[in-house]
Amino acid sequence: MPNLDRLHVVLVSPRNPLNIGAAARAMANFGYSYLAVVAPYEEHWREAKSAVGASDLLQNARRVERLAAAVADCTLVVGTGTLQHRKPEQPVIPLPELTLIVGAELARGGRVALVFGPEKRGLTREDLALCHVLVEIPTDPRQPSMNLGQAVAVCLYELAARGNTDAQFRDNDKDAARMEHANPKEDRAAPVSPHDLACARDLELLAAVVAETMLAANYSPAAMQKANRHDLDLLLRRLKLERRDAQRILGLFRRILWPLKHRTGLKD
Amino acid sequence: MPNLDRLHVVLVSPRNPLNIGAAARAMANFGYSYLAVVAPYEEHWREAKSAVGASDLLQNARRVERLAAAVADCTLVVGTGTLQHRKPEQPVIPLPELTLIVGAELARGGRVALVFGPEKRGLTREDLALCHVLVEIPTDPRQPSMNLGQAVAVCLYELAARGNTDAQFRDNDKDAARMEHANPKEDRAAPVSPHDLACARDLELLAAVVAETMLAANYSPAAMQKANRHDLDLLLRRLKLERRDAQRILGLFRRILWPLKHRTGLKD
Repeated sequence: MPNLDRLHVVLVSPRNPLNIGAAARAMANFGYSYLAVVAPYEEHWREAKSAVGASDLLQNARRVERLAAAVADCTLVVGTGTLQHRKPEQPVIPLPELTLIVGAELARGGRVALVFGPEKRGLTREDLALCHVLVEIPTDPRQPSMNLGQAVAVCLYELAARGNTDAQFRDNDKDAARMEHANPKEDRAAPVSPHDLACARDLELLAAVVAETMLAANYSPAAMQKANRHDLDLLLRRLKLERRDAQRILGLFRRILWPLKHRTGLKD
Repeated sequence: MPNLDRLHVVLVSPRNPLNIGAAARAMANFGYSYLAVVAPYEEHWREAKSAVGASDLLQNARRVERLAAAVADCTLVVGTGTLQHRKPEQPVIPLPELTLIVGAELARGGRVALVFGPEKRGLTREDLALCHVLVEIPTDPRQPSMNLGQAVAVCLYELAARGNTDAQFRDNDKDAARMEHANPKEDRAAPVSPHDLACARDLELLAAVVAETMLAANYSPAAMQKANRHDLDLLLRRLKLERRDAQRILGLFRRILWPLKHRTGLKD
């Protein structure tokens, strides 16, 4: 699967059908194909898809109800937006430096989601907790907030144009494929497989089991559950877990959870 | 005058009021203020200016009837657009490399115009003849044509973000200003003055006199006049004339023109 196909654009609850169309057009301009839309406003989404000249890309967009579902397969989730109102809880990368990180992840065989929030209010704190990093477009402080379609265009331009990197990675992919074909057994020479990276789905499962364990262990008052889960989501993304480590930790917590629940049952 | 104020955006006959508004918004996002609109569609231009949230930038936009008037003060005119249909007659610069050229021109004290054509058909051959260079946004050949507002956003992002250059040039400006203040007579230490570069107005005057001379000298059939003028416009921009040289050549052609006209008068 070429690199361009492993970068997915995700629009969370977009409001303006023109912006949805503009985002899809920018994706086509820069060679990207995979769009997911999270909980769109029904009427606006229908209008965007039925617009004159609406693209196949838009017709084929995946529609899901939660951001977690949109990014489940992704090993790197990048949140976007101006960070005027809140103190970010993740690393913030200026857009001109994003290509390095995204390029490296794609070169490793990972899958990247670039997530854009709704026009007025941007991504919620809950949405941001699913992001490994936030990207900031360097705008004028007097007028920081960009139009959604233009923000998508600028981010994809940066990734497409600034990575000659990408063309180069594609060549690497071809070389790797050729090499694998020639020496199918020389696994050590092949690039790291995407299975070595924990994807968002792995992290969500792990977070769920850890949260259940915290609950079973009476770790903190019930009123703290939501805040704890939020911190846990952030922590798991800071760790940049490989999939095998995520599975190990999951196994550990399942072991811990069982007797905890059992004892809890006895107490009751 | 800071560098950002010496980069002007020019929209030629924009059709869609939303695109005009989007272009203005992108300018504000990236810190640019000077917009000129050439021969806009009256109704759409009124609509764009009266839109809710239309900016001061849009209210203050200069409105002119010809591209030549919009770029008259500029020492570097950059045309934009996809170059699918025509063979370009000027050097074509990929957008990721534009900052070098524009940054150098601004650092020299020049004034730069970034010119965008109408949505459907782009800049005409006549418009392009007023451009020193063309910039190409590297888009997917299957979907090369960008939305106007998004193209403006991408170009200005590249210039604003990719020139740390710009922040750097601003500091240079400050240093230069300080230096001039301290040693007002040390002209040789000061940066090259903008007066050393021929602006579009100088070149248009020169072209007019050269064209008149060609006509007076019966250089070619009358049917060739338009094509000759086109080639002349391109030639003068290739030469990258300093203003003093443009003035010398103008003086020369005026000298030549006088006896030519005089003799022509005698012959008749």
